[in-house]
Amino acid sequence: MNVRPSLNQLGLSTGKKTRLYRILHQHGLRNGTAIFLPYDHGLEHGPRDFAGHPESGDPKHVLKLALEGGFNGIAIQIGLARKFYWEYAGEVPLVLKLNGKTDIPAPPDPLSPVNATVEEAVRLGADAVGYTLYVGSPAQERDFAQYLRVREDADRYGLPLIVWSYPRGAAIDAKGGRDSFYAVDYAARAASELGADLVKVNFPQPDKQSGVPEAYRRGFSSQEAIDAVVQSASRTLLLVSGGDHAGDEVMLEKARQSMEAGATGLIFGRNVFQRSHYESLRLVAQLKDILAKYPS
Amino acid sequence: MNVRPSLNQLGLSTGKKTRLYRILHQHGLRNGTAIFLPYDHGLEHGPRDFAGHPESGDPKHVLKLALEGGFNGIAIQIGLARKFYWEYAGEVPLVLKLNGKTDIPAPPDPLSPVNATVEEAVRLGADAVGYTLYVGSPAQERDFAQYLRVREDADRYGLPLIVWSYPRGAAIDAKGGRDSFYAVDYAARAASELGADLVKVNFPQPDKQSGVPEAYRRGFSSQEAIDAVVQSASRTLLLVSGGDHAGDEVMLEKARQSMEAGATGLIFGRNVFQRSHYESLRLVAQLKDILAKYPS
Amino acid sequence: MNVRPSLNQLGLSTGKKTRLYRILHQHGLRNGTAIFLPYDHGLEHGPRDFAGHPESGDPKHVLKLALEGGFNGIAIQIGLARKFYWEYAGEVPLVLKLNGKTDIPAPPDPLSPVNATVEEAVRLGADAVGYTLYVGSPAQERDFAQYLRVREDADRYGLPLIVWSYPRGAAIDAKGGRDSFYAVDYAARAASELGADLVKVNFPQPDKQSGVPEAYRRGFSSQEAIDAVVQSASRTLLLVSGGDHAGDEVMLEKARQSMEAGATGLIFGRNVFQRSHYESLRLVAQLKDILAKYPS
Amino acid sequence: MNVRPSLNQLGLSTGKKTRLYRILHQHGLRNGTAIFLPYDHGLEHGPRDFAGHPESGDPKHVLKLALEGGFNGIAIQIGLARKFYWEYAGEVPLVLKLNGKTDIPAPPDPLSPVNATVEEAVRLGADAVGYTLYVGSPAQERDFAQYLRVREDADRYGLPLIVWSYPRGAAIDAKGGRDSFYAVDYAARAASELGADLVKVNFPQPDKQSGVPEAYRRGFSSQEAIDAVVQSASRTLLLVSGGDHAGDEVMLEKARQSMEAGATGLIFGRNVFQRSHYESLRLVAQLKDILAKYPS
Amino acid sequence: MNVRPSLNQLGLSTGKKTRLYRILHQHGLRNGTAIFLPYDHGLEHGPRDFAGHPESGDPKHVLKLALEGGFNGIAIQIGLARKFYWEYAGEVPLVLKLNGKTDIPAPPDPLSPVNATVEEAVRLGADAVGYTLYVGSPAQERDFAQYLRVREDADRYGLPLIVWSYPRGAAIDAKGGRDSFYAVDYAARAASELGADLVKVNFPQPDKQSGVPEAYRRGFSSQEAIDAVVQSASRTLLLVSGGDHAGDEVMLEKARQSMEAGATGLIFGRNVFQRSHYESLRLVAQLKDILAKYPS
Repeated sequence: MNVRPSLNQLGLSTGKKTRLYRILHQHGLRNGTAIFLPYDHGLEHGPRDFAGHPESGDPKHVLKLALEGGFNGIAIQIGLARKFYWEYAGEVPLVLKLNGKTDIPAPPDPLSPVNATVEEAVRLGADAVGYTLYVGSPAQERDFAQYLRVREDADRYGLPLIVWSYPRGAAIDAKGGRDSFYAVDYAARAASELGADLVKVNFPQPDKQSGVPEAYRRGFSSQEAIDAVVQSASRTLLLVSGGDHAGDEVMLEKARQSMEAGATGLIFGRNVFQRSHYESLRLVAQLKDILAKYPS
Repeated sequence: MNVRPSLNQLGLSTGKKTRLYRILHQHGLRNGTAIFLPYDHGLEHGPRDFAGHPESGDPKHVLKLALEGGFNGIAIQIGLARKFYWEYAGEVPLVLKLNGKTDIPAPPDPLSPVNATVEEAVRLGADAVGYTLYVGSPAQERDFAQYLRVREDADRYGLPLIVWSYPRGAAIDAKGGRDSFYAVDYAARAASELGADLVKVNFPQPDKQSGVPEAYRRGFSSQEAIDAVVQSASRTLLLVSGGDHAGDEVMLEKARQSMEAGATGLIFGRNVFQRSHYESLRLVAQLKDILAKYPS
Repeated sequence: MNVRPSLNQLGLSTGKKTRLYRILHQHGLRNGTAIFLPYDHGLEHGPRDFAGHPESGDPKHVLKLALEGGFNGIAIQIGLARKFYWEYAGEVPLVLKLNGKTDIPAPPDPLSPVNATVEEAVRLGADAVGYTLYVGSPAQERDFAQYLRVREDADRYGLPLIVWSYPRGAAIDAKGGRDSFYAVDYAARAASELGADLVKVNFPQPDKQSGVPEAYRRGFSSQEAIDAVVQSASRTLLLVSGGDHAGDEVMLEKARQSMEAGATGLIFGRNVFQRSHYESLRLVAQLKDILAKYPS
Repeated sequence: MNVRPSLNQLGLSTGKKTRLYRILHQHGLRNGTAIFLPYDHGLEHGPRDFAGHPESGDPKHVLKLALEGGFNGIAIQIGLARKFYWEYAGEVPLVLKLNGKTDIPAPPDPLSPVNATVEEAVRLGADAVGYTLYVGSPAQERDFAQYLRVREDADRYGLPLIVWSYPRGAAIDAKGGRDSFYAVDYAARAASELGADLVKVNFPQPDKQSGVPEAYRRGFSSQEAIDAVVQSASRTLLLVSGGDHAGDEVMLEKARQSMEAGATGLIFGRNVFQRSHYESLRLVAQLKDILAKYPS
Repeated sequence: MNVRPSLNQLGLSTGKKTRLYRILHQHGLRNGTAIFLPYDHGLEHGPRDFAGHPESGDPKHVLKLALEGGFNGIAIQIGLARKFYWEYAGEVPLVLKLNGKTDIPAPPDPLSPVNATVEEAVRLGADAVGYTLYVGSPAQERDFAQYLRVREDADRYGLPLIVWSYPRGAAIDAKGGRDSFYAVDYAARAASELGADLVKVNFPQPDKQSGVPEAYRRGFSSQEAIDAVVQSASRTLLLVSGGDHAGDEVMLEKARQSMEAGATGLIFGRNVFQRSHYESLRLVAQLKDILAKYPS
């Protein structure tokens, strides 16, 4: 188990520390942990992600869920932020997601193009910005260039930068896939070396060993894997993603192991909103019970 | 049926609201609905679109049609705007279409390059700008980058941004085609998340099911499909395109269903000008009869 | 036959009108028509275009020809403009050609890269700038982007923009070729919609019908074709190119038909300078006899 | 043997000389030689480089090693610099590495994209910046463009620029490989002509002769090869890399030959930190014993 | 034979004329002719070009050669200029070569990327800048764009621009090769039209006729060919390159013919420095004997 670093250790500017303090200590459980609600599925996958629960397609409904559930922040694209956030401005922190893409074409060199700016995030009163980095994509050159501009702007305005660090591309597929311990560990470290303040990763799967480097084939347990990932992220705060729908018990166990490993929190989307309002709130309560055990 | 959102709910800046109010409440039926006349066919398809009705190739003729028909706006490229709009400046709102392309090459990665700026739209007294986004094109990366610059400029100057949200590319062709319910629904949502103020889509065809995701294969009616599309656009005002020539009755029925679903209006080009002047005006009158039933 | 539009109808800025008035009414026949001498063959084809008439390779010789022939302007690249125009500054209007290329490689996506700026044209006292647009080229995206910057600068400084609107690329070859009525008609319209002040096209050949759209296969005469092209250009003044060497009679007849159709003038290069000085001046006199019949 | 040039001979600006003087004469042995600790493996190879010695994955541990070992500088990426260097600010010189990449994809045209700026290096109190140039890569055009911007900024702010000059790409593989005398000699010279202040190269291997130019096939000794490389770098100070793990004796012998040839110092990463803390310090002491014999 | 144009005829700005006057009339023979020493082989070919004469790899040695030989200028890259020119500042004119590349990869679309700026040339006290243009390369679009920026900056600061006009690429290879009369003639003209002040070409070889246009197949003599090339360059001063090692007599004869044709001078690199110091100076003396016969 690792000790979660304090905000004072992270080399943060005053602006970034102010906003991270607000997110971690003045919202949610106010104990230094966090649970975020990402809601960019309409762009990333299309409205099909709302099938079965049509109210989940209504941004107003999801914003209310973020409020009622006591989330530490909601991560949305510029269009929804402008049209819907004004009604709830300040009530729940806004994480403006700065890039995104549709999943219609499936290019060999995935890249998530920027569609909003840090300046717009400031203008909207956001407390953080989000950027998806496709670690391992052959588009690395263009991705890093685009990322650099975002990171510089986030620094200039003092907004914490959350990197969605996602392993992608044929080389990743050939080396254990996007959720292998190897891929997730590398993604966490890359985001850290590249200057992310927080990094969102999927829970690592140490049993995916086909094609991964020798060092990852030693029969690690889930707990050992997530421990190592938190260490690799070093002073970059780690958020663990809910990923695809899994059974609730499996999901809660992963959340527990993540927090045990020193993660700062969770970022759960479809797992939360693809159920009835009541069920959503019940799951969130369970997740917050876990977070409550890991104050910092 | 959905309730069309009021201008006060859209999170609009003062400049955008001023101009949208002017378009929706001081032109056309002045009841919050709209009918637009797009006229960029000379660039998009070449003069062949004017064959049979040569006067339709004369921008002055079409501008007069927009005036006589009481349209809420005419959407044209910079060249025609500069050479012809000065004669009718202010009489009918100008929507400056900022990008466009010829249909001569048929690239696998369609993109509509920008050929005019928002600043020019301001200089010409335009009340809105238009941008064609090819949702699903492999050129998504360059398209989003170009779109971002347009959107930022539109925000800076307070001009409403109308997105022509057009599904395109091989992946779209393989998933039901450009007019499938799936494609149109995704296109409406993508434009909304990306910050469009209004979105122009084709009428969805729920019977195009080959290759579409499961959620779109449940035997939806036309009305259900357009209802869902309006919902997906959430607070982005929806304009339905006339598309290719269809029989007048079919077209009028689609217009009726669109307005019933909560669309804000219609945007009809070839369907309107590819007939005699008298016939054009007669069709426009019929369309406005429909709009008249859906004031907001 | 069309009526050539007056300068007052074109929506021109004061600067553009000043310079166009100077070109059309204070040089050449001073009657609103124009004949231009393009001389960029050394870059576009290399010195081989001067073979047989080596004095034609000397820019000073050709500038004197422009003066003695009473041309309305000479169109040259920046290098020749800087080294030779100072001797004749103001005596004959300068059209600075802003882009160009060698014909050595034959890329599938032709584009004419910019090698000089509108600001340089202003500095040199030019009265107009020229830009080659390859309509139909797969490089359309880059071409439009480059063109936009040129057009904006021409607007900023009030310099008329002459577009060399040239159909090019495999799709054009498959649809009747670069001189088909279809291709020339589309090229004229595209330039007009994109904001050209004048457009240079080749004379349309209505008998090239293989692969052209239905609307162009109705057995049009030459006169009908050029009439339509002038209409498609609407308020963009049309200049007809001499093209490759043809017999003098054919060439004069095309010039006659062009002016009859409402063109503003002619732009003849090799047809003029690839002969003895005496023969050049004789041909120019014949062309001006035609222009003299179409004052505006 | 060559004589190492003095700082006064290098044509340095005052700012660059100040910082180079600080690195070479106020840290390490303070005798004009240098040993640097590069630590960007987490980005370049992923956390697998820390396997076996997990404490080496902790940037704080490695910074302490740099301090205890008396290094002349530590070269790290922006993320680690911001999160960890503040604790040791000024105690050991910081070399901010401005570009880097993951090794997941293996593109045919390697390029190391920039992820931080010279301005950030200044802001962090760095005494130098590092840039990886892939000499021989087909990405040369983009690499040189990116490099030029970095070099200009380094000049503007007076920060010495260390170029990691690495032969790469298929053409290099076909001409003796990345460590051949030919490749290393060319890489040193290219960096020098392109304006590097210091250049990091691998130790040349004169026995790799397959495909190298005639001039490199004359049976050179190691010492002759490294002598020539130092000459090719002329007034660019040469740093020799430890490269992959080799036996300690071999490594020490290469260090000795490098210093004998007139190199300014060493830059050793994995060879140093992939051992126990005690062993690391012992190796560093041995290397510094060598450096001590070559003061300037 | 042509008459070399005087500086007053070239349309030069005051700054450019000042510096050209200094180069042509205050250095070398001070008679309006010039001999330049290019020394960028370490970047273009690597240190192998110095084999056999290792002192030629030392920039200081070559600078002294330029001084002792009484050259009108030395053309070097930024790195050598900064590290070595300060010792001889002002004693021999500096031509800062702004672009260059290694010859390791052999791309089908050669382009020489810029690695220094005109502003740096000004800062270093250079009297001219050099740019390599690969006429005929499929990279023409990127090359012209890059060249335009250099030319504009050279104009802004009043520095003469010398274009290394080199035919390159598959199309050139198919049309007689890079040294054919056709290719060299086109290259000279292209540089002239694109605004070069001086142009460096190889001596044309009229016997290379395979694939060249008809106009170049008429059995021209060497003298006729170089005469035509000087004419094609019109008011752009022509410098003839020494090219690959040829016998001294052949080389001197080419120099004689070039000057007879109206060239301004010579630019000889390997032919000069790839010999003993004594032999270098002897050859330079012979070349200057030729130049002395063509004062202007």
